[in-house]
Amino acid sequence: MTDRVVLAYSGGLDTSVAIGWIAEATGAEVIAVAVDLGQGGEDLEVIRQRALDCGAVEAYVADAREEFAAEYCMPALRANALYMDRYPLVSALSRPTIVKHLVRAARQFGATTVAHGCTGKGNDQVRFEVATTSLAPDLKTIAPVRDLALTRDKAIAYAEKHSLPIATTKHNPFSIDQNVWGRAVETGFLEDIWNGPTKDVYSYTDDPTFPPVADEVVITFEQGVPVALDGVAVTPLQAIQEMNRRAGAQGVGRIDIVEDRLVGIKSREIYEAPGAMALIAAHQELENVTIEREQARFKRGIEQRWSELVYDGMWFSPLKKSLDVFIDDTQRYVSGDIRVTLHGGRATVTGRRAETSLYDFNLATYDEGDSFDQSQAKGFIEIFGLTAKLAAARDVKFGNGVDFGTGTL
Amino acid sequence: MTDRVVLAYSGGLDTSVAIGWIAEATGAEVIAVAVDLGQGGEDLEVIRQRALDCGAVEAYVADAREEFAAEYCMPALRANALYMDRYPLVSALSRPTIVKHLVRAARQFGATTVAHGCTGKGNDQVRFEVATTSLAPDLKTIAPVRDLALTRDKAIAYAEKHSLPIATTKHNPFSIDQNVWGRAVETGFLEDIWNGPTKDVYSYTDDPTFPPVADEVVITFEQGVPVALDGVAVTPLQAIQEMNRRAGAQGVGRIDIVEDRLVGIKSREIYEAPGAMALIAAHQELENVTIEREQARFKRGIEQRWSELVYDGMWFSPLKKSLDVFIDDTQRYVSGDIRVTLHGGRATVTGRRAETSLYDFNLATYDEGDSFDQSQAKGFIEIFGLTAKLAAARDVKFGNGVDFGTGTL
Amino acid sequence: MTDRVVLAYSGGLDTSVAIGWIAEATGAEVIAVAVDLGQGGEDLEVIRQRALDCGAVEAYVADAREEFAAEYCMPALRANALYMDRYPLVSALSRPTIVKHLVRAARQFGATTVAHGCTGKGNDQVRFEVATTSLAPDLKTIAPVRDLALTRDKAIAYAEKHSLPIATTKHNPFSIDQNVWGRAVETGFLEDIWNGPTKDVYSYTDDPTFPPVADEVVITFEQGVPVALDGVAVTPLQAIQEMNRRAGAQGVGRIDIVEDRLVGIKSREIYEAPGAMALIAAHQELENVTIEREQARFKRGIEQRWSELVYDGMWFSPLKKSLDVFIDDTQRYVSGDIRVTLHGGRATVTGRRAETSLYDFNLATYDEGDSFDQSQAKGFIEIFGLTAKLAAARDVKFGNGVDFGTGTL
Amino acid sequence: MTDRVVLAYSGGLDTSVAIGWIAEATGAEVIAVAVDLGQGGEDLEVIRQRALDCGAVEAYVADAREEFAAEYCMPALRANALYMDRYPLVSALSRPTIVKHLVRAARQFGATTVAHGCTGKGNDQVRFEVATTSLAPDLKTIAPVRDLALTRDKAIAYAEKHSLPIATTKHNPFSIDQNVWGRAVETGFLEDIWNGPTKDVYSYTDDPTFPPVADEVVITFEQGVPVALDGVAVTPLQAIQEMNRRAGAQGVGRIDIVEDRLVGIKSREIYEAPGAMALIAAHQELENVTIEREQARFKRGIEQRWSELVYDGMWFSPLKKSLDVFIDDTQRYVSGDIRVTLHGGRATVTGRRAETSLYDFNLATYDEGDSFDQSQAKGFIEIFGLTAKLAAARDVKFGNGVDFGTGTL
Repeated sequence: MTDRVVLAYSGGLDTSVAIGWIAEATGAEVIAVAVDLGQGGEDLEVIRQRALDCGAVEAYVADAREEFAAEYCMPALRANALYMDRYPLVSALSRPTIVKHLVRAARQFGATTVAHGCTGKGNDQVRFEVATTSLAPDLKTIAPVRDLALTRDKAIAYAEKHSLPIATTKHNPFSIDQNVWGRAVETGFLEDIWNGPTKDVYSYTDDPTFPPVADEVVITFEQGVPVALDGVAVTPLQAIQEMNRRAGAQGVGRIDIVEDRLVGIKSREIYEAPGAMALIAAHQELENVTIEREQARFKRGIEQRWSELVYDGMWFSPLKKSLDVFIDDTQRYVSGDIRVTLHGGRATVTGRRAETSLYDFNLATYDEGDSFDQSQAKGFIEIFGLTAKLAAARDVKFGNGVDFGTGTL
Repeated sequence: MTDRVVLAYSGGLDTSVAIGWIAEATGAEVIAVAVDLGQGGEDLEVIRQRALDCGAVEAYVADAREEFAAEYCMPALRANALYMDRYPLVSALSRPTIVKHLVRAARQFGATTVAHGCTGKGNDQVRFEVATTSLAPDLKTIAPVRDLALTRDKAIAYAEKHSLPIATTKHNPFSIDQNVWGRAVETGFLEDIWNGPTKDVYSYTDDPTFPPVADEVVITFEQGVPVALDGVAVTPLQAIQEMNRRAGAQGVGRIDIVEDRLVGIKSREIYEAPGAMALIAAHQELENVTIEREQARFKRGIEQRWSELVYDGMWFSPLKKSLDVFIDDTQRYVSGDIRVTLHGGRATVTGRRAETSLYDFNLATYDEGDSFDQSQAKGFIEIFGLTAKLAAARDVKFGNGVDFGTGTL
Repeated sequence: MTDRVVLAYSGGLDTSVAIGWIAEATGAEVIAVAVDLGQGGEDLEVIRQRALDCGAVEAYVADAREEFAAEYCMPALRANALYMDRYPLVSALSRPTIVKHLVRAARQFGATTVAHGCTGKGNDQVRFEVATTSLAPDLKTIAPVRDLALTRDKAIAYAEKHSLPIATTKHNPFSIDQNVWGRAVETGFLEDIWNGPTKDVYSYTDDPTFPPVADEVVITFEQGVPVALDGVAVTPLQAIQEMNRRAGAQGVGRIDIVEDRLVGIKSREIYEAPGAMALIAAHQELENVTIEREQARFKRGIEQRWSELVYDGMWFSPLKKSLDVFIDDTQRYVSGDIRVTLHGGRATVTGRRAETSLYDFNLATYDEGDSFDQSQAKGFIEIFGLTAKLAAARDVKFGNGVDFGTGTL
Repeated sequence: MTDRVVLAYSGGLDTSVAIGWIAEATGAEVIAVAVDLGQGGEDLEVIRQRALDCGAVEAYVADAREEFAAEYCMPALRANALYMDRYPLVSALSRPTIVKHLVRAARQFGATTVAHGCTGKGNDQVRFEVATTSLAPDLKTIAPVRDLALTRDKAIAYAEKHSLPIATTKHNPFSIDQNVWGRAVETGFLEDIWNGPTKDVYSYTDDPTFPPVADEVVITFEQGVPVALDGVAVTPLQAIQEMNRRAGAQGVGRIDIVEDRLVGIKSREIYEAPGAMALIAAHQELENVTIEREQARFKRGIEQRWSELVYDGMWFSPLKKSLDVFIDDTQRYVSGDIRVTLHGGRATVTGRRAETSLYDFNLATYDEGDSFDQSQAKGFIEIFGLTAKLAAARDVKFGNGVDFGTGTL
């Protein structure tokens, strides 16, 4: 039986050429799989037909938008996932989703190999391949752009020679990846990190410099997941889409960062994630109100490791799963309403309301009704500060204390 | 010899009354110490005279603005210190500075006790007292508002009875603490956490809703400390003051948060820190460019612990000092220029330039000149993902793998 | 209705006297609760009768041995819980177990208050009281030894005056706490930390200096819990008891440490935990064989925090529960056999065998059959070391590289 | 000019053959460098001559024993470095030491390349190559056993064909690496992880089953480094050597572990490190006495990361250096005497004595003279446990509290 390869197919030049390229290099039949993660752009049926026209023996399109929102974006929201405190893992979340569909297709079509169109210097190659072997350790992976040295010039020449139904422009100003959680832009003049981004870089967000009037939204969460906007029930996908629209109109969620890639280089990235950033801001503040202090302090370290693991392609790894159960356990009471004002690039929380709140007005207030017993504080401070005090006494004993001099003030 | 008490004196009602209150309760002489941390407001000479008028045997005013900026705010900047990822530790940084001057005064004037005007339910009592015993373990501490039950009503009655030269209004809408690093506002109607802040809450920042035209600033850092703005050399104090002015005019640095206090309660806080927030944003991005990945990843955990320790009053503790030397070591190459656009509440980094940069255009570029050897990636990914792959194979072996079903797609 | 107090009753002098002491000080009826955690010693029925004879209106004895082993010791084993890398949390595990029974009794007997016999300078007062308010936030706590200043001399005088049926010796050489998980000894001449422990300190372990012949045991675990010894099925309690007997006979599990108490002081402690230490050693090695590397590395930090939380009395806290679900998730495959040689104070693992092992002979071997593809290593090392290499190049550029001189070798 | 390669030369078969092998494969001149780290065995002058006889153009022997002990083993001791809580990093510490000498030789002899004899599946290849590029990013690396596929059979054939002055036995039962800090043994029948080690595996330690009479030693530390044994001043090297002798005679420091390699596989390792393990035990306990609690708790996480980094070959990385300054700062007061009893495989601390001790008899004692103010405890506990109490009240409110039933006890 002829060997079969499942290719992650975007409809673009590289993966269109890769269909024939892989077939020639390996003798295998190529099955193209395109996955809808809310990236918009071309109709997926058009893309499916193009794959067949380019030589795929099968072409399959999966609408994974609800799955992506519910099973990938929501865990990221519960983790307040921001790699390097900034990047909401737009592409990093999409790769395991796509791979799951690639592996499913490989099983259905009896393929032995999964292929993707990534280069050899980015994170996505790692995410594709590690996710694949973490779901299906028996499958092989192949990366024609990297392993078969499919450069852009070669791709254009190949497409023209074989009259592939795909546009062949010599130059794209940027390399772009997008889905419902956000949009990533890199390369081109942005590679000079002193250059600021130009207006044409952006697509998901309007210019925050000249915003429309402020937009106020009340986001209702249940156990860390948004379930209503302004009282109207939404699915996770709808929550993200609607917040993309409303926060995007206010220019919320533009990110410009020099980022540490897993492969050891620093790269400059522009992201847009209006919905994600507004939802994360709201979720963080709801956690501030509903999560106990020590659990919250420890969760920050968990969030960082979660973000690094997912960035690094370890979505299906054992540690990632254990971090998930930790995070899930913290979300039991993360339910309630957060009021957010969206305006001019800012998503500002102005109110929070939760039956499960740990904020206790009677303990917090300085007005009448204060139920906090201040007489406890003296003993608390003495014992809380005792180890530092003993260490200080030792410093004094050994002449290492702070010298306050002997002169006049 | 009569016992002496050094009192942290603000010039306000509580500490003015505390002078006589302490004297009566303890029989000691009271020495008032007021410390200028750039909080503005009344002239310090006026405050000094008021202390004497209220019965202090000595009154001392210290201009600690440069010291505060250089020795307290700059370490916080190098630590990107944001408690709960939000609060730049405005009050938390000021307390150890004040305490150092209190202890110095105690030594000079032969006092045995340090006093402060904090209540028994906040963080500042802990910071005052732990800092005191961490600098001078032999000194005692006293908190008249807490320990002597000096309520506001009692304070007003006392001031009126003794005709103290201090205004006695029954009600302040807010409790405010401010210094050059920022401003903290709490209590009043903000204690209802569903209420948004009103315009009168703010003083350091103009309304970001209607900003003036955008302001672009180039901040030059040397080893993590700002040394020039737009090419003009500045001291740390000047850097903060100037950025307060410019970022404040754009409404940058407003923070509204429900916060976990050390004493176990959640409280609602409004902060303004225009200079601090803009400087931290710039510093973080310069670190992204100049700090090696693993050092940067680990530093985030250090930063969190540093922020928690300082929030919790442990400025002079042994662990805090060890975290400082770690952070100092990371700042060796954090030198260069960051261009920031200030506008409408946003401080947006748009450019970075550093001789010490680890960003390598030739490694990062997808254009010609690429020096990254992509052939290494395949081996890297195989070994990097090997443990996850072996774990996945075990999942499959024990029937715990992802089930991809057998039906058609 | 008369107020009622539930007292954690040990049968010893302090808590026997406390019955009357509390009644006199508070006017409440006292209900004595004794909990069997495998501490041995007096018959619990005798203890129950003594409580009644000392004035308790009710006396209740609970056999919590299986519960303690299964629900407290086993989670500690799965966490490899060793506070300060040494102490297996003997007393710290017992307090929440006891408190659960105290609270249950309080509910049954309509009590409003829980009482314990701890002093004011140890950890156990914190564990009793925080566990109580973490299970039943409405209950009050009282500590007669601390709050009512019940010194030993007063206790003896009270017992003699009231002819309580309890021995009153002026001096115990040590303060001892024990249960099936281990035994803790402190005070007396051990407070001079230069003194070595004398032979009379020990009870659970024989002298390892002159051991009997070596004893080899195969411990079978399922999901981190011992289920068989030498092929014979055991309950958690039986596993601990049997290992106490066999490892104790070889002098395994003696610990001598200066320890950091939660209340800020360092104290010198002697522990004996033969079964616990042997089981932990076996469990750790089974984890080495069955847990994926990154999960294992991260779990160490989780274990440390778990141990600190439990030591600090936070058994029922939200963070502790979230750490538990993390740990539980890691134990899925921690099943298999560990062979341990017990001899002369050592519990030495010599063999491990697990169907769920991640050890792969074919990958590990240097013999024929090696399935590891060594050609991947070069690429892995280049990329793995790239960030350090770039940092080194910067060091060289700025003259901060290692200077290798120019002279001859 | 002819290219030159510096080879890490052990004197054994593989690296002896590699001299000619590299020369043939690359056309370069080979310079052999042997480094004495206290590994014992053959005379280094003999080894030097053998290198020349095998075709090296230069052969250089470095006595790095004092350097290794002072600059590599002592930092490991101060870090209590135990990878996976067990392995004292014997080989991991030696590689950067050797590489420093290789790079020095490369500079002296004008070489462009560093070569080593490691295979492609171990950690040492990573350590050699990453250390090299971290010291000298311009140097290339080559690994003939891995890159040139120099198998043992080929090596034997080559040696015999060229009559190299080196023994060629087809089979070594074990692969061994040793230096003054310890000894590592792997492969052979140990690859069956159910097999216990046999007596012939060990060389640095006598059998602990039949020990001589117990040996008591007092180790004096200054700032974390041993400076005297039983009052006799020692260098770091002498401290390790002498403790190897004395602890080795008692069978201390045998380790048998399944270990996670950096390259993703688990391997079974036997180590002997009598001196290292005894010194670490003593150092840890001195830290318990002299380091403040929060600093000590945090240092454990630092130690783990330090150990992982060094294990993973990152000795010269930026993060490793920052961890070093943290650790150095903690050692300021780690000075004093620790008494250790060595016997039957155990190194047991029985006494500690330090002028810099934070152990305070008057705070710790339950006898007269107690200076701890127990009245502070009540307030401490209330506030310390407040967040858990509030969380518990919420659990109760939402029906998630512990159910204590309504039946009788």
